[in-house]
Amino acid sequence: MWTAHLHPRPTALSAPAGGFEMLYDLMKRRRSVRKYSSKAVPREKLLRILQAGTLAPSGADQRPYVYVVVDNPELKRRIREECEAADRAYHQRAPRWMRKWLASKEITPEKPFLTEAPYLVVVVGETDKPYWLASAWVSIAYMILAAEEEGLATLTYTPAKMSFLRELLNLAENHQPVAIIPVGYAGEKLPAKEARIEGKIFYNRFGGAEA
Amino acid sequence: MWTAHLHPRPTALSAPAGGFEMLYDLMKRRRSVRKYSSKAVPREKLLRILQAGTLAPSGADQRPYVYVVVDNPELKRRIREECEAADRAYHQRAPRWMRKWLASKEITPEKPFLTEAPYLVVVVGETDKPYWLASAWVSIAYMILAAEEEGLATLTYTPAKMSFLRELLNLAENHQPVAIIPVGYAGEKLPAKEARIEGKIFYNRFGGAEA
Repeated sequence: MWTAHLHPRPTALSAPAGGFEMLYDLMKRRRSVRKYSSKAVPREKLLRILQAGTLAPSGADQRPYVYVVVDNPELKRRIREECEAADRAYHQRAPRWMRKWLASKEITPEKPFLTEAPYLVVVVGETDKPYWLASAWVSIAYMILAAEEEGLATLTYTPAKMSFLRELLNLAENHQPVAIIPVGYAGEKLPAKEARIEGKIFYNRFGGAEA
Repeated sequence: MWTAHLHPRPTALSAPAGGFEMLYDLMKRRRSVRKYSSKAVPREKLLRILQAGTLAPSGADQRPYVYVVVDNPELKRRIREECEAADRAYHQRAPRWMRKWLASKEITPEKPFLTEAPYLVVVVGETDKPYWLASAWVSIAYMILAAEEEGLATLTYTPAKMSFLRELLNLAENHQPVAIIPVGYAGEKLPAKEARIEGKIFYNRFGGAEA
């Protein structure tokens, strides 16, 4: 019917030149950070990050989400408590490979970043709008890159249960929490990462020529 | 229990200074493009875009997706045919506000970009890995920004039905198509957009102080 083309396999990134080097460096530098400094974050920085989120494309241009920024210490404490309870249960029922991965990263059900980071951005989807989940995640991606550019660390944290946020944050019927994004100065230094495309790229058919 | 803080409301972006202006400009410039030039795209550009996708954070660092790049003209034609059939049905059953929005954007079930764009990147989730859908969308967000930086246009296109891709692209049991991203030079010029945060940002509780 149609024939998969055979393609030369470029082995690595050609030496980049021009403005895109900066963007790729930003993407490489941005790491998931679980330790935060309590150093205050200027509100202008936070606002620029949230605005970046709304610049992301969304289903039918509806921006089907709201951002609830939590900076109240008592509320952060409550959120941490609930998340840790949910994650303790999750760590016990997680598959073995996942428990191994969590251990290798020293990830435990303790979530100090939920009280240490100056801001928690709770991204809440509006479930009565189309493509709300996809749109929320694309907007999160824009925000975490903007945060990196602001010199701030983030984590795309999805606790095993988020229903408790409904009451705590006064959410409406059509609201579904998607993720909690701590935003603050990093309390740990992680090395930049590299692109890893092995096994990920195929031409014209899965199992066909790889890049 | 806890009290919502009252915050001053910054009315607009403080005049940005430094490197982040470039990132925000990129995010503002990047528009969803539905008309493509058939001008060839250097494969190095495509590869850098795909590599950018793999730099995105993903659930348990599993990168739970593959990218199937379609550049075979006959295959693109088949995909277009199937998508247009699915979208014709969808346009008929879409709610009134959505049909109105589609009309205002002159979006019809005709999808010429599926044959005009030199590349279609079909992003396929691996459903047996955790957070596959969220991870796939975050990786798509990285790719569309990388494409913009490469001077290329994209669209996050989700046809109303994608099951036909299973056979056409030789997908496996654990594969679920998430979106089709045309990549090419823009065949239309769209103005940059602005951040729109009205009604989107709240502090400590939904309905509380807005930014």
